[in-house]
Amino acid sequence: MPPFAQGVVRDLRVRWALEEAGIPYVERLVGAEDLGTPGYRALQPFGQVPAIETDTFKLFESGAIVLHIAESSEALMPQDPVGRSRTTAWIFAALNSIEPRVQALAELDLFHAKEAWAPLRRPGALTAVEKRLGDLEGWLGERPYLEDRFTAADLMMTTVMRILRGTDLISVRPVLRDYQQRCEERPAFQKALADHLKPFAAPAA
Amino acid sequence: MPPFAQGVVRDLRVRWALEEAGIPYVERLVGAEDLGTPGYRALQPFGQVPAIETDTFKLFESGAIVLHIAESSEALMPQDPVGRSRTTAWIFAALNSIEPRVQALAELDLFHAKEAWAPLRRPGALTAVEKRLGDLEGWLGERPYLEDRFTAADLMMTTVMRILRGTDLISVRPVLRDYQQRCEERPAFQKALADHLKPFAAPAA
Repeated sequence: MPPFAQGVVRDLRVRWALEEAGIPYVERLVGAEDLGTPGYRALQPFGQVPAIETDTFKLFESGAIVLHIAESSEALMPQDPVGRSRTTAWIFAALNSIEPRVQALAELDLFHAKEAWAPLRRPGALTAVEKRLGDLEGWLGERPYLEDRFTAADLMMTTVMRILRGTDLISVRPVLRDYQQRCEERPAFQKALADHLKPFAAPAA
Repeated sequence: MPPFAQGVVRDLRVRWALEEAGIPYVERLVGAEDLGTPGYRALQPFGQVPAIETDTFKLFESGAIVLHIAESSEALMPQDPVGRSRTTAWIFAALNSIEPRVQALAELDLFHAKEAWAPLRRPGALTAVEKRLGDLEGWLGERPYLEDRFTAADLMMTTVMRILRGTDLISVRPVLRDYQQRCEERPAFQKALADHLKPFAAPAA
């Protein structure tokens, strides 16, 4: 993984959720050569990370894995029907209403900056992100979290906001900056981030 | 709603799920003038559609609403833990791994075709969609559905594929074309689509 991806690859979300829930796990690292193999595709149909295996089933998509973990952990989600539904709504909002625009801007800056279309497209891509960040800021206002307490939705939203770390889009918005900091100060996040980064620091085999 | 959006606005997903589950509902149409009001933002923080209200709570994000409906309907999801998790994984795959690329291509064609950057960007945007469609085709193969039977995940995937209706990307892939047709032939889809389209045919007030 190149430096720009370290600290944002989606396994971080799963590690963080497992830490919050207090569930031990064993990591299995995969390399680019694994992602297209039939064995890995049976686990992850799109050759992405993360994916998990438990005693009874396989699961892919960081959103589904985090939601699955949250469904059995009060630490990640109120276990009453309304609290569960609200948390789920915000997980989808992070992944479907915000991340696509955020990811498009990050990919433009990271992968396409030198292509002729990039400077022409960037203002519109930026506006699209700013609109959603403004809406998010409007919702949060004085709230410390998206709903009444920290949930898996805040975990997910924080990891989406991290994708913008190459920009000042979060730091210029105090509500979002403080919200992200509040979530990232959690010991479970710090542990997950350290474990996420560890393999990148290891000398190549 | 302009013609290009009719038949793909996300309320279609919720209507389809409610029809499959046999749950009656009352529609409340909103106009552009409603989407920014504090009242609507309390229901849908990003001023989008759809959102639902039940006796006990409010919910937004089509993914969360469809998943919520599926959680109490055997017609939309096996109710055992493994079946639920697999369905959830594919709902997230449709909305987070496929839709962002599909939506980016559709927006390029629908909103930006005359901008200078569009023809330069389109090949890359197209390749990104084709990669994921190829992966999806590879997974489906001989399968009639994403998992053993029709679920809310097929519903979601079909509505994502519909966003490509202005292209030949589905029709040139028999596996995907037949899969989409299989899902859209369902009476619940036909009923939902008709109800979704009905307001657009009404004369403007």
